[in-house]
Amino acid sequence: MKVLRVNMHRLEATWEPVPVEYEPFGGRALIAKILLTEVPPQCEPLGPHNKLILAPGLLGGTNLSSSSRLSVGGKSPLTGGVKEANCGGDAGSGLARLGVKVVVVEGQPEDGHWYLLRISQQGAELLPADDWRGLGTYATVARAREQWGDHCTVISIGPAGEMRMTAAGVACTGYGEQVSRMAARGGLGAVMGSKGLKAVVLDASGGEAPPLAEPELFRTAARRFARELAENPRTGRQGSMHLYGTSAIVEAVNEMGAFPTRNFREGRFEEVENLSGPRLREITLARGGRVGTRCMAHCVIACCNQFVDPEGNPVVATLQYETIGMLGANLGIGTLDEVARLNRLCNDLGLDSIETGAALGIAAEAGLVRFGDTAGFEALLNEVAAGSMLGRVLGQGAVITGRVLGISRVPAAKGQAMPAYDPRALKGNGVTYATSPMGADHTAGNAFGIREKVNPLAATGQCEASLQLQLDVIMLDSTGLCLFARPPVFADPQLMVDLINGRFGWGWSVADLQEYKKTVLKMELAFNRQAGFTPADDRIPEYMKREPLPPHNTVFDVPDAELDGIFSAL
Amino acid sequence: MKVLRVNMHRLEATWEPVPVEYEPFGGRALIAKILLTEVPPQCEPLGPHNKLILAPGLLGGTNLSSSSRLSVGGKSPLTGGVKEANCGGDAGSGLARLGVKVVVVEGQPEDGHWYLLRISQQGAELLPADDWRGLGTYATVARAREQWGDHCTVISIGPAGEMRMTAAGVACTGYGEQVSRMAARGGLGAVMGSKGLKAVVLDASGGEAPPLAEPELFRTAARRFARELAENPRTGRQGSMHLYGTSAIVEAVNEMGAFPTRNFREGRFEEVENLSGPRLREITLARGGRVGTRCMAHCVIACCNQFVDPEGNPVVATLQYETIGMLGANLGIGTLDEVARLNRLCNDLGLDSIETGAALGIAAEAGLVRFGDTAGFEALLNEVAAGSMLGRVLGQGAVITGRVLGISRVPAAKGQAMPAYDPRALKGNGVTYATSPMGADHTAGNAFGIREKVNPLAATGQCEASLQLQLDVIMLDSTGLCLFARPPVFADPQLMVDLINGRFGWGWSVADLQEYKKTVLKMELAFNRQAGFTPADDRIPEYMKREPLPPHNTVFDVPDAELDGIFSAL
Repeated sequence: MKVLRVNMHRLEATWEPVPVEYEPFGGRALIAKILLTEVPPQCEPLGPHNKLILAPGLLGGTNLSSSSRLSVGGKSPLTGGVKEANCGGDAGSGLARLGVKVVVVEGQPEDGHWYLLRISQQGAELLPADDWRGLGTYATVARAREQWGDHCTVISIGPAGEMRMTAAGVACTGYGEQVSRMAARGGLGAVMGSKGLKAVVLDASGGEAPPLAEPELFRTAARRFARELAENPRTGRQGSMHLYGTSAIVEAVNEMGAFPTRNFREGRFEEVENLSGPRLREITLARGGRVGTRCMAHCVIACCNQFVDPEGNPVVATLQYETIGMLGANLGIGTLDEVARLNRLCNDLGLDSIETGAALGIAAEAGLVRFGDTAGFEALLNEVAAGSMLGRVLGQGAVITGRVLGISRVPAAKGQAMPAYDPRALKGNGVTYATSPMGADHTAGNAFGIREKVNPLAATGQCEASLQLQLDVIMLDSTGLCLFARPPVFADPQLMVDLINGRFGWGWSVADLQEYKKTVLKMELAFNRQAGFTPADDRIPEYMKREPLPPHNTVFDVPDAELDGIFSAL
Repeated sequence: MKVLRVNMHRLEATWEPVPVEYEPFGGRALIAKILLTEVPPQCEPLGPHNKLILAPGLLGGTNLSSSSRLSVGGKSPLTGGVKEANCGGDAGSGLARLGVKVVVVEGQPEDGHWYLLRISQQGAELLPADDWRGLGTYATVARAREQWGDHCTVISIGPAGEMRMTAAGVACTGYGEQVSRMAARGGLGAVMGSKGLKAVVLDASGGEAPPLAEPELFRTAARRFARELAENPRTGRQGSMHLYGTSAIVEAVNEMGAFPTRNFREGRFEEVENLSGPRLREITLARGGRVGTRCMAHCVIACCNQFVDPEGNPVVATLQYETIGMLGANLGIGTLDEVARLNRLCNDLGLDSIETGAALGIAAEAGLVRFGDTAGFEALLNEVAAGSMLGRVLGQGAVITGRVLGISRVPAAKGQAMPAYDPRALKGNGVTYATSPMGADHTAGNAFGIREKVNPLAATGQCEASLQLQLDVIMLDSTGLCLFARPPVFADPQLMVDLINGRFGWGWSVADLQEYKKTVLKMELAFNRQAGFTPADDRIPEYMKREPLPPHNTVFDVPDAELDGIFSAL
């Protein structure tokens, strides 16, 4: 495999051999390694010294189920620290099948022009794209596919990223007709925008699955992995993950009292049943939307529901839990149609629906719009599209919106908005929000899944639980595997070891696997430390320590000293 | 003396004895001590745990020349660190003469109401002030003096502080008719606003000079101090400081190539002569404005020029160098009348003219207004007054304005805008901006005064020079002395020792004095460290390291490692 290095200053795309020290890494792990090696931790995130990194996971390009996620990375303009965000779709697989271990985009064009990077079996080239400027992600994809064929994978930013808004993510097409999946978090869309890169168009035709060091070992493990996913009561055909996708958990989080409602004022939303997974499926089926589709070619779970409007027109490829929470209950909105409309707008603008939902909730708290007023929220998103002053504020995300509007109830950690679990009623997530090098993130170590084992309302035991979760997801994020595909490899780490060894022949043991996770987390923490992070950054907002959250009326009370000690055993 | 503790939650003002550990401190030093003792370094600056501190200097209330400055402090909402800003006027003297060592305002009203704190010989009381809301500082002062007499000192915030804008300062009346002097920096006006405190009205009638431990020693030293100021070629009657005030240095800084012009694009301004000290004096005299007035009752320098409009109406009490730089050249504005109009607007809104000038420069760079378009800048300040979205952005200062407008050329350090010396052509100031616990600050260690001794364009020798300057000013800021009054005490530290010993009888040596400065600086650094500051915060913006500044075409090139070592000898 090779490194594709794209210099936006010289406007050159060059192929390089993979440096030996990068070889063991993929996806999130490789992003951490490259950031620590090549990017000055104190650089301006939107300046010439930051880099935009696109990395398939270690297992990307194989036919392993659910392994095609693309990791996008760089120094985050939102948190100021290390950032990896990943998304489903076929980009991870496509890059790997073209032999691309990683795309490193560096420098900035001096001329202010826009470019498009085309990658195919013929090579990589930068094309002028000034006339693509201002296109939403849907129009960008349509135009790219018109020009280069429907089989192309398109990684792009919308107007939000072009305007360097720090709530901007990177959009990526999914399998089939799916247009806009998002590597949403941390403002990486703004980093892409700062490089003058509107889109990457990937044509994986003619690409091949990467070689297997021990083909039999790999194939056996991959078959077992697929079979266990298919047989698992949650990921199998009768499982809630297949039937409802991430929306499966709406009612459970609400029942826990952790469902952010009206800017994290309450933990239960009175209209929750209209936002639930079953309701989502019922509406989708009744209107002729497709359920149980895949975001990538190889996935036995197939969790996506194509949300359609009452006339049966597609609205969003899949309506996710975090979006339902942050653009739904958090805004006091109680119908999926309305949430989907806002989601579509975010996707098209290239905005993180979590960060944007938090910013809109703050706008409502400030009185700019009423909670529940969907038309009002749509109008605010149109301000973002127009690049008005209000739109530019909202587009910077929750923290800046709060500061400008004079609102101190800002649900964020390390500058990044919290996803849809209030840390006062799911304290393990609070620990992850506070301490993860990624900032407040639901994929960095989500304690919802262990709510039966660790009392989500207790102050004790959360740090140990969060640390284990934080370590475990690193392996998913570094192999290109979906979080939904975790049951087989979490149940038996040897399965992950077999997959790695089968692919690379590294002869890993389970102990090596555990050590690898720690190595990655330590690299991320080191980058952040050099960027200026301290324990003072590992905190939950002050108001959540004194304002009780109904219905349990709990505050976030994991002691600071415990947060400070969470990584001491690494 | 006593501590006046004002609890805005319980709405109580209570008198407390001075804790023994606070006794050695005054002004800036006392603020550092109280912050470190009473305020959690990681608290939200605009939340209930921060405190607003008003402290006369150690020598406040005596009849020592130029010793009545008031230090205002708290955790800065702009930098997130320790903050002391001080201003001229009679507040420092007035408080000290009423026996008030410090006013500590803590908590927040729950009801969102506004209050006014009245302090007189009869005591202290909180009065309702909801109907004062929205008043500019000029109207606030007029109303307070109408109600309580022209002799009252009024410390107040304008609409900017009420709106919790982090470019908001605290305004204070000066001697005679001077209305609006500003403890401008660091967003302390927002802290005052967050406490629901619109104004402090101080009636020092009946107050007495504080007791002198060694009256003869003190009086002799004070007489010598006054005589040396009067005889000094710069502070005496023929001196530039008396004749022109701070505006004396306009042409010299321009000549050095360090005069920020059009958002720090250039270091010389083609219209500088129209902004110079001599021009200021000439206009003032020609129009019948008063020159050589004092901001406080006891001052032998008397540096203030009352700038008047062509009809002879007062515009601002004194037009200062930093304002001329930041609202003049930095905005491409080349007449003092226009600068004074913008200055008046800032004063009335209660905005720091430095932070605001930097924010407006960024707005011009973003194309919201043309450089030189004074009416355009006035319109932007009116947006601040109106609390429009654009106004709220500008009111947050340079960093937020840059982020929202997508401009990366933001002249700031630790979140605070640079004053009117470009660090690429006065590198000692760059070191101070980067390393001072106060953020970019011209009073924290200004190397302009040593430009003959240390080459301002050289990368070497700046850290040693800055450290010495940073230490030396601490003693001024902690005694209530004006920076202008430094020559006698900088020339002979024994004079400062005699003043301290004369007042308090502490039996200090010069070595004790030097140790005291270090103690204070170390307290400030400790607060910041606990608040989460690291060497990564001790930096000049990236663009100043690569963008050469005309006319010398130098960049800021003091190595990071030197910056990191500056305090190692403390």
